[in-house]
Order: sequence, then C-alpha cells, then structure tokens
Amino acid sequence: MIYVTRKSHFNAAHRLHNPEKPDDWNRKIYGKCNYPNWHGHNYEIEVVVAGEPDAKTGYVIDLGKLQSIIDEIIIEPCDHKNLNTDVDFLEGIIPTTENLVRTFYDRLKEPVEQSAASGSSLFLVRLYETERNFAEYCPYPRI
Amino acid sequence: MIYVTRKSHFNAAHRLHNPEKPDDWNRKIYGKCNYPNWHGHNYEIEVVVAGEPDAKTGYVIDLGKLQSIIDEIIIEPCDHKNLNTDVDFLEGIIPTTENLVRTFYDRLKEPVEQSAASGSSLFLVRLYETERNFAEYCPYPRI
Amino acid sequence: MIYVTRKSHFNAAHRLHNPEKPDDWNRKIYGKCNYPNWHGHNYEIEVVVAGEPDAKTGYVIDLGKLQSIIDEIIIEPCDHKNLNTDVDFLEGIIPTTENLVRTFYDRLKEPVEQSAASGSSLFLVRLYETERNFAEYCPYPRI
Amino acid sequence: MIYVTRKSHFNAAHRLHNPEKPDDWNRKIYGKCNYPNWHGHNYEIEVVVAGEPDAKTGYVIDLGKLQSIIDEIIIEPCDHKNLNTDVDFLEGIIPTTENLVRTFYDRLKEPVEQSAASGSSLFLVRLYETERNFAEYCPYPRI
Amino acid sequence: MIYVTRKSHFNAAHRLHNPEKPDDWNRKIYGKCNYPNWHGHNYEIEVVVAGEPDAKTGYVIDLGKLQSIIDEIIIEPCDHKNLNTDVDFLEGIIPTTENLVRTFYDRLKEPVEQSAASGSSLFLVRLYETERNFAEYCPYPRI
Amino acid sequence: MIYVTRKSHFNAAHRLHNPEKPDDWNRKIYGKCNYPNWHGHNYEIEVVVAGEPDAKTGYVIDLGKLQSIIDEIIIEPCDHKNLNTDVDFLEGIIPTTENLVRTFYDRLKEPVEQSAASGSSLFLVRLYETERNFAEYCPYPRI
Repeated sequence: MIYVTRKSHFNAAHRLHNPEKPDDWNRKIYGKCNYPNWHGHNYEIEVVVAGEPDAKTGYVIDLGKLQSIIDEIIIEPCDHKNLNTDVDFLEGIIPTTENLVRTFYDRLKEPVEQSAASGSSLFLVRLYETERNFAEYCPYPRI
Repeated sequence: MIYVTRKSHFNAAHRLHNPEKPDDWNRKIYGKCNYPNWHGHNYEIEVVVAGEPDAKTGYVIDLGKLQSIIDEIIIEPCDHKNLNTDVDFLEGIIPTTENLVRTFYDRLKEPVEQSAASGSSLFLVRLYETERNFAEYCPYPRI
Repeated sequence: MIYVTRKSHFNAAHRLHNPEKPDDWNRKIYGKCNYPNWHGHNYEIEVVVAGEPDAKTGYVIDLGKLQSIIDEIIIEPCDHKNLNTDVDFLEGIIPTTENLVRTFYDRLKEPVEQSAASGSSLFLVRLYETERNFAEYCPYPRI
Repeated sequence: MIYVTRKSHFNAAHRLHNPEKPDDWNRKIYGKCNYPNWHGHNYEIEVVVAGEPDAKTGYVIDLGKLQSIIDEIIIEPCDHKNLNTDVDFLEGIIPTTENLVRTFYDRLKEPVEQSAASGSSLFLVRLYETERNFAEYCPYPRI
Repeated sequence: MIYVTRKSHFNAAHRLHNPEKPDDWNRKIYGKCNYPNWHGHNYEIEVVVAGEPDAKTGYVIDLGKLQSIIDEIIIEPCDHKNLNTDVDFLEGIIPTTENLVRTFYDRLKEPVEQSAASGSSLFLVRLYETERNFAEYCPYPRI
Repeated sequence: MIYVTRKSHFNAAHRLHNPEKPDDWNRKIYGKCNYPNWHGHNYEIEVVVAGEPDAKTGYVIDLGKLQSIIDEIIIEPCDHKNLNTDVDFLEGIIPTTENLVRTFYDRLKEPVEQSAASGSSLFLVRLYETERNFAEYCPYPRI
C-alpha cells in the first residue's frame, strides 16, 4: 500500500461554545477560546489516500484532482468564513479540531475514493489549528 | 550594531472593511477578506532591536524581558480576540497587515527601548498574517 | 478514534556515553556525540492522545491541560538542564533519542490518561533531537 | 517498539510520461508534469526504522550509519540527476512519488536492516516531492 | 515606509553551464550542478514592495493582485519548465540564483509599481533555490 | 548588488555566566540560562555575501566553497562542543547570541571575501539560537 498526501490550507474564524450549557460553564471549559467576538486560525489540512498505484499512470490519485476535491468540499465553504455561523455542514457542531477533522473526513470519503485508483481508501485526515495543535481522524484501528 | 529578534504569536479574528465606504466598494476592494462574519489568522510577530551588547551581560536586550513586553503590549490585548471590535488601540484602524504592524511598532517603541542596552533602538517589527503574506515597518530609511 | 497532538519544546545539554564501557569503545560508537564537555539540542516533543471526543466539550483532551502536564512532567525537569546529570528520572539512562522518548512516554501515560476523555489512551510520543533526527514510541503493535 | 527517523534530501529533474501511451494521453493525464523538457524538485526523504534499542548503545540504529546508507543507495545516484534518464534502478519506472518511494524502500530494506539492532525492520519510507505533496510506503498492514 | 511581502513558488529544471567555455571548465566550476541531463528545484520567490498604505484601503498593494502579477510574469513562464531552454526572457542567461533573481526583479518592477499605492517601489526580490541557498536583489544601496 | 545566503547548522552546549560577577548576579541576570551544568541548542547560521555576480560564472560566490569555509571556520570548531570551554576563539567571551554572531562575522570576513567575486563583501551573519530567538551582525549602517 502507498499512502499519498496532499496538504492544503484555509483561514477561518471560530469560537468554542456549547449553547446547551450556561456561560460560566463555557468560560471555565474553553477559557480564551470562548471569547464572544471570535478569534481565528490559519488551518492546514492534510488528506491521506491509501491504495496501489494505477499501473498505467503510476498514481494512487492525481494530486491535482485531489486538490480540486478538497477545494470544493472544504476550502470554498470554509475559507475566510466563520466556522460557527457560515458553514452549512458544521451546523450544530462545536468547532474543536477534533470535531472538524471528523466532519471533514466524512465529507471527503466518497468523492476522494471515487477519484482514486480502484481499491483505494481515504485513510486519514489531519487538521492543524496551529503549528503546535493538531488532530487526525483515521477509521482503521490502530489501538 | 547587533540586531536581535524575538518571534512570538497570537491568534485573532478580523475583517477588512472601511466603514466610510459603501458595501459594494468594500466587497470589490477586499473580496473574501470582507466577508461579514469574520475570518482569522495565526499571526506571527518578530520584534527586532538594534544596539551594542552591554559589556557586562553580553545582551542587547534580555529576550525574556522582550517577550514580557510583547506579551503585555501585543499578545494579551490581541490573542483570541477580534481585531476590529475588541482592541482599544486598534479602534478606527482597518486591520490590514500594513496598518497592524505600524501600530504595533508605535506601541512597542518606548517600553522596548527603555529595557534595552543604552543607545538601543526598536529597529523593525515584522508581522506574518500567513506564511506567505507579511509586512514590516522600519522607520529608518532604506530607499 | 481521533488522535490529538500537542507539540512543545525544551533546550538541553547531553552526551552519549556508556559508563560501563571503556573510553575508546564510547568514542568509536558515539563519535562526536561522545565529546566530553557536552553538546546540546533544541528538542521538540509531540504528545499524541487517542480517544473519542467528549460529547459535551468536543475535546479528547483540553490541549491547555495537556500542555500543563507536559510542562510539569517533562519541560520543567529538562529545560535548560543537562540530561546526563540533572534529571532524576533519567539517572542511569544513556540519553539517546530512543531512550528519552520511551522514558517520557512512561512518565506521561498516567497523568495524561487521567485528564483525557474517558477511554482515551496515550497513543504515541515523538521526540525531535534535530529537524532531521527523531524517534517515536508507540506501545500499540504496528508490525 | 521505537521508531527512529532520519530525514535527508536531494535535488533532481524528472518528467511524468508513459512511453507506451500516445502523447495526447500523456498530456491529458499528467498536465504540466508532462512538459517535454523536464522540471524538478527538492526531494526530502524520511527513512523510519522500527526496533528495540540495543542495550549497550541505546540505539535502534546509529543515525550516522543510516545517513551513510541513504547517501550511498539513494542520494548519490539521484542527486542533481534526471530521474527518467540517469538512474539505473529507476529504468522503466514512471517517476511518480508513489513509484519512487516504493522503489527506494525496496533498495533500502536489506542494508538498513543489516545495520540496525537485531530484530529491527525498515518500517516506512516517506518522500516529499514538495512541501504539500508526499507519499509513503509501509509494507505492514494499516487497513 | 511599510514593506509588504508575498511568497510564491514554482518547480523547474535547470543546469549551470557557460556555453562559451569548454566542458572541463564547466565541470570544474559547477560540479554536479553541471550534470548534462538537468536537475531541478522547488523555487520559492518573495517579492517585497515598499510604500505608504493607501488611506482608503490600508494596503500598500493588494496581495491578491501582487500574486496575479507574479503568476503572469514569473510562475506561468517558469513553472514545470526548463529554465535553460523553455523561458524566452532567460535566453542567454546562466540560471544561477543570482542571475535569476536579478532578471525576475527587472521584469516585475514596472507592473508591480503600477499596481501599488502611489509612490511605492519594488524594494527587493528574494529567490530560494533550496531552503539553505538563496539570493536577493535590491537596487537600493545597503553598503 | 546581489546578496547570496548559505544556511548551515551545528549543535552545541553553553551556559551564560560572567565570571567577573558573583553567582547571585549571574542567576538574576541570566535565569535558567545560567544553570551550572550547561544546556544546549541546535544553532542555525546564515552567512550573507554581497557582490556583483562574476560575468563568466554567474556566481557572487560558489555556495559549495562558502559552505567549506563555514565548515572550517565555524562548524568544525563548534559542532558538538561546549562553547564556554572547548572553542579557542570564544575564550573569554560570554556566549550570548549577540556575542557569538559578532565573533563569527569577524572570523568569516577575510576568507569569505577572498573566495567571492572581486569587490564582494561579507554583508551580514545571522545566528538562530532557537527558531524564535536570533541575532544578526551587519557592519554597514542601517540606522
């Protein structure tokens, strides 16, 4: 199996807040990430596809095509947007890096696998909130 | 002359919008940077102090002390905040990287020079909005 | 399973030397890493926690809390110290990156898992000695 | 198990072209990567060895020795060369990142495992074509 | 004066060779950079514009517009090309980083200054051949 | 004028301590940088040469030759060494980044200028102690 990765990025505002909980719970749990007027990040997203390279092209997936899918599914709806208020598919989701990366994986899975070499899988999505904080979702057991 | 640099960072939301201009002017000039519900960045700030090292310490400025000044003057008021609405000293300023870096320089100049070796100057402040977009302000003529 | 990572750093001196072996063996095996008067590194440590995000917070673990644990368990005892002589829990351990990362994992496991969402595990610790040399310890079988 | 990594680099020219296919197929599949007069990259290669540290040295593998093997097996034949025309062991292989990383793994496996601590394995090779495009080969099942 | 920078990149093949000199002179002077079948790099280009921010926009130059100019003037003609054979404006120029950066500056000067705030100047162009080798051209005296 | 830069690195131990001052002064001024048993860093050094490219080679200086000079003058005496005790030319110098970069400049100036194109100058040396702390020495007035 070969694992190919495409790294892409977008800039967005967000705020961590659970609307079902009182304000003091939110302030205690999320600290400065709960400030009411938003803050933001330069997000970096890495999308990893596992498969056998196609014999004729030598590609697991054309990374240009993979970038187009990431652009359409993730970057266009999220870039320069507010992740709490502007993105349909994030409605009702607290935008922690954990929740975002899982949601992004689910949206990318079908279109990525349809464009990759036969038998390929969307293996993992990794999302950097900052250079020092990141999360990844991988549905294949590692523990 | 030795030039010493301390690099620091903060995360903030902002939006580019000139309130004295109509909405269509703002949309045309700023494009997606004008989206109404904010977006954000992981800002990186580099503060450069020029001077002769103190003979006893070998320091132009103690970089721990410089970090404390940057923390107090820039990071605490801006980190996890909205640069358009939450920061007193940015009131009335369109938060382009150009305007931010100039404002940060002006605020840092006096406290930095008071903590540096005698005869030192705040030479330059550089602000990265993203890894690929940055601005610097230096009052000393280079052209 | 979501895997969240916090990256942190410290600066330390060390020397590779097996005191049970003669000096010429040490010089031959470790080369310049055996120089008697120490050398040092800017170490970067990545701590990876695997779990399901808590339904109320959306966190596998609060990365601020994770940073506090790393600070107390690793950074405070090791930062600006000599790894051969100053750190109690490294006594008797040759400070190769391999040995350090394993020791750090063992010390971090219990406090990290107590602070993470129920059912979480300390999945992996990665330690960079330089940008080009690093080691990771993961107790879950990958081979 | 500890996993140790050594990162190294080389600069090379290449072109994606399947000589068994007509020119218009190649242009359609590979786009600008098919331009006839070559283009090139600063490749970065990471070689990951898994094993138990040797009790006497604390090393899974001496990273200096690992670098020597990478130099001999990969860097010397590929650096400042044309991957389509100058490298014997790449003859007949379309130099996609996928195909390169698999070929590099196969060449490195035996000499790396002979130089590592007893029972060690070449776990994975990762190859960056650019900072945003990379591939890895790992023969151990992860899916 | 504010200095704003936009960083961009392209991948290209090249070879260092002075056709007016014999082959052995070229091999001696350029070493492996003279290998006949080309090698290549991931070039990174930084374009620095100096000026006073426009009072209405807060921009020295719209970095999106600056990117469009860099795309048209540098990236489109050079990306995935051979710098010795495919680029009209590099004809007769030995593609050292020094010569490339000077040529890029000269081509960018007029279109960049026409798109920037009144009174702005193209201050400097910096070109990275690798992360460890780079050159910059600045016509304003610094020595 | 073209400015060419070569970046290189070394790993070393050091401690900040002024032997002419009492221990409590040293502890107060240098804090954890004064810990008695040393700490260390991955230093990165950038050497910048200014000049006109030679008409025949297109080089201000052959960066391979520049690397050899840096290796001989800086890397070999300092790499994997203790900067307080092991390096002749640092005797009596408190190894702050400021003092180190000035001393490195002075040692590099003559051999670099003798190997560069006629009329070239060693313009600047930049030394990174960490990714966030660095100093540069440039003898040409900028203030």
